[in-house]
Amino acid sequence: QINGDRLWDAIMEMAKIGPGVAGGNNRQTLTDEDGEGRRLFQSWAEAAGMTMGVDTMGNMFFTREGTDPEALPVYVGSHLDTQPTGGKYDGVLGVLGALEIVRTLNDLNIKTKHPIVVANWTNEEGTRFAPAMLASGVFAGIHEENWAKARVDAKGKSFGDELKRIGWEGEEKVGERKMHAFFELHIEQGPILEDEGIDIGVVTHGQGLYWLEVTLTGKESHTGSTPMYKRRNAGLGMARVIELVHETAMDYQPNAVGTVGHMDVHPNSRNIIPGKCVFTIDIRSPSLETLEEMRERIEDGIDTICEALDIDVSVDEVGHFDPVTFDAGCVKAVRDAAERLGLSHTNIVSGAGHDACWINRVAPTAMVMCPCVDGLSHNEAEEITREWARNGANVLMHAVVETAGV
Amino acid sequence: QINGDRLWDAIMEMAKIGPGVAGGNNRQTLTDEDGEGRRLFQSWAEAAGMTMGVDTMGNMFFTREGTDPEALPVYVGSHLDTQPTGGKYDGVLGVLGALEIVRTLNDLNIKTKHPIVVANWTNEEGTRFAPAMLASGVFAGIHEENWAKARVDAKGKSFGDELKRIGWEGEEKVGERKMHAFFELHIEQGPILEDEGIDIGVVTHGQGLYWLEVTLTGKESHTGSTPMYKRRNAGLGMARVIELVHETAMDYQPNAVGTVGHMDVHPNSRNIIPGKCVFTIDIRSPSLETLEEMRERIEDGIDTICEALDIDVSVDEVGHFDPVTFDAGCVKAVRDAAERLGLSHTNIVSGAGHDACWINRVAPTAMVMCPCVDGLSHNEAEEITREWARNGANVLMHAVVETAGV
Ligand SMILES: NC(=O)NCCC(=O)O
Ligand SMILES: NC(=O)NCCC(=O)O
Repeated sequence: QINGDRLWDAIMEMAKIGPGVAGGNNRQTLTDEDGEGRRLFQSWAEAAGMTMGVDTMGNMFFTREGTDPEALPVYVGSHLDTQPTGGKYDGVLGVLGALEIVRTLNDLNIKTKHPIVVANWTNEEGTRFAPAMLASGVFAGIHEENWAKARVDAKGKSFGDELKRIGWEGEEKVGERKMHAFFELHIEQGPILEDEGIDIGVVTHGQGLYWLEVTLTGKESHTGSTPMYKRRNAGLGMARVIELVHETAMDYQPNAVGTVGHMDVHPNSRNIIPGKCVFTIDIRSPSLETLEEMRERIEDGIDTICEALDIDVSVDEVGHFDPVTFDAGCVKAVRDAAERLGLSHTNIVSGAGHDACWINRVAPTAMVMCPCVDGLSHNEAEEITREWARNGANVLMHAVVETAGV
Repeated sequence: QINGDRLWDAIMEMAKIGPGVAGGNNRQTLTDEDGEGRRLFQSWAEAAGMTMGVDTMGNMFFTREGTDPEALPVYVGSHLDTQPTGGKYDGVLGVLGALEIVRTLNDLNIKTKHPIVVANWTNEEGTRFAPAMLASGVFAGIHEENWAKARVDAKGKSFGDELKRIGWEGEEKVGERKMHAFFELHIEQGPILEDEGIDIGVVTHGQGLYWLEVTLTGKESHTGSTPMYKRRNAGLGMARVIELVHETAMDYQPNAVGTVGHMDVHPNSRNIIPGKCVFTIDIRSPSLETLEEMRERIEDGIDTICEALDIDVSVDEVGHFDPVTFDAGCVKAVRDAAERLGLSHTNIVSGAGHDACWINRVAPTAMVMCPCVDGLSHNEAEEITREWARNGANVLMHAVVETAGV
């Protein structure tokens, strides 16, 4: 059994770095606060006797040696970056839960056959630099490192420059490490476990996603003196696309979701008809077929909308992953661990994307989920109980130790 | 006849201050650039022998003495501030056209009975500080000065502080000046005059307006893991309101327009369902009845939309003026001037708001309009011809001199 209070204290300590405005966190990737969070994590991991490696994407790896010098490590971790208005647990629970495993194994003087490596992946959230799970994606060979480093934030700063600036560009080549397995503990971020009163989600699948960045170009003109028939209103076009995305998702629910969360309006003046709007469509489904159908329907619909309003459009794919099926063996290890600990559990599909979704491409992978209050995440009010955190970390530890061998 | 080349050169000289990114201007009210534009205008007006007065709202007045010491001045002018992506003529033509009248009268050694005062009104555009025509509104007794000075921009800076900062808070009490009449020359900002090949718009009326700032509050949550049924999506609410405003205007057109040009989305992250949206509805009509009907229909519609989406709403009126009927005598002076100069003319309703709309409440007022290319304004590509500018300023001069008496 892990030490639930120690885990909780570590989470609360981390939450002091990059506090939000409403009790949560704003510790976005590659900000000064991200740097500070990394240093705190490093100090804890080194105090637990682990040695650090950092790759050129800023991914952090702390190794606890195993007893078999030939054995590949079991990796376990998540991410420390947050949304601009993020919670204290999204990602953090997975990293500090992994640290807590090592602390517990140290306390109990347990040696594993395979080494254990605790990981923090860079830029999981994808808000500052799209796409999400950027650095685990490079690790898994999905993205080119140069392409990833050239991604820019809303102010035009690049991932590569910002990583250097905060001092966390390591030396290791990305993706060179070989894994025996990877496990990630994460809060559910949805309502199922809490609603059904279940302790543990055994994550069997993950939804697929598209992020489509749409640029609509109309014509700026005066709101008062431009007759309705003469308008080329990019803002109206955006409104119609938002409705289209919603309707499409409603038609496919509960097997799909669709949202526009990011919108920039130019020149954003009360008395100027918007000349340009840039916004990102987020569509997801556990079914590849549904995901592709939704994309097609939305792209066709956008064309129809823009034709009717005489506005120009370009659509740029800024994020994409196919639905994921996690490794049967690792999933079983998670389910067995919950069973052994006497915790109620159910198979679950991850609604969100996770680093585990990419790592699953290069190593046997599975995830453990614990409930969160009201299914709320990507909100400063995100909340979990100490018990949920402890249960999740205990399942994680048992799955990891089982896989790493004693 | 005024000197068309001198007028044009002055406009081009002013356009060098606060250049935009696409050939127009960004000389928003109470910025450093506004201060610089004011100083240039002051130097020209003083060189033309006029004396300056500035009131506590930063309105600038330059007096050319008349021959009758008892006679109230004829005021003439417009505004030098621009939209963030504004044109070179919106407002500027009216101020520098007024200056050109005085320069011409000086050249011709013509004395008028009534003094002539050339005016530049502060914050006509209303983009930085809502509402539009703020300082002429205080002058006309529509707004309290303290209220106006407490208006804040998007960064929270107040009108009063910014006016002080750029050094243009004068000593004169606002609205103390009495006027014999007021005339304003402005580009049409709409397509009628150009489409019909007419030189001069004799402005008989102005549209009324409401600016309604809407705040929708839903609940931030994860775009991937929040099921469709559990969402409180403020962004979807905004999209529906934008469509509602458009539909309402379409139902009343050509006697109405409706637009949402300003939108702020919080937290504006690709994978967060918007928790809060703040945006401004702009509706206008020359008919008071239509304007009120539109407002009611839109406010009712917003309630229905928000109920369906389980989001909270507040609506704040941040701008309002009733439709305007300009003074019959001043309008006749404009029409007679066009007639006398052999210019084609037509009665026209101003689609935009103007300082003249407020001054009309306290003095006999009228406006002269000249065409603009493609009816385009509130766009850096706003364009007029030298001839249109010259014709407009000539009509303005004849109307002013007729009213001021020789
Ligand atoms: N888990 C999580 O919130 N990941 C961010 C990427 C996504 O939008 O799914
Ligand atoms: N003329 C002009 O563009 N005024 C700005 C106020 C308005 O939106 O009508």
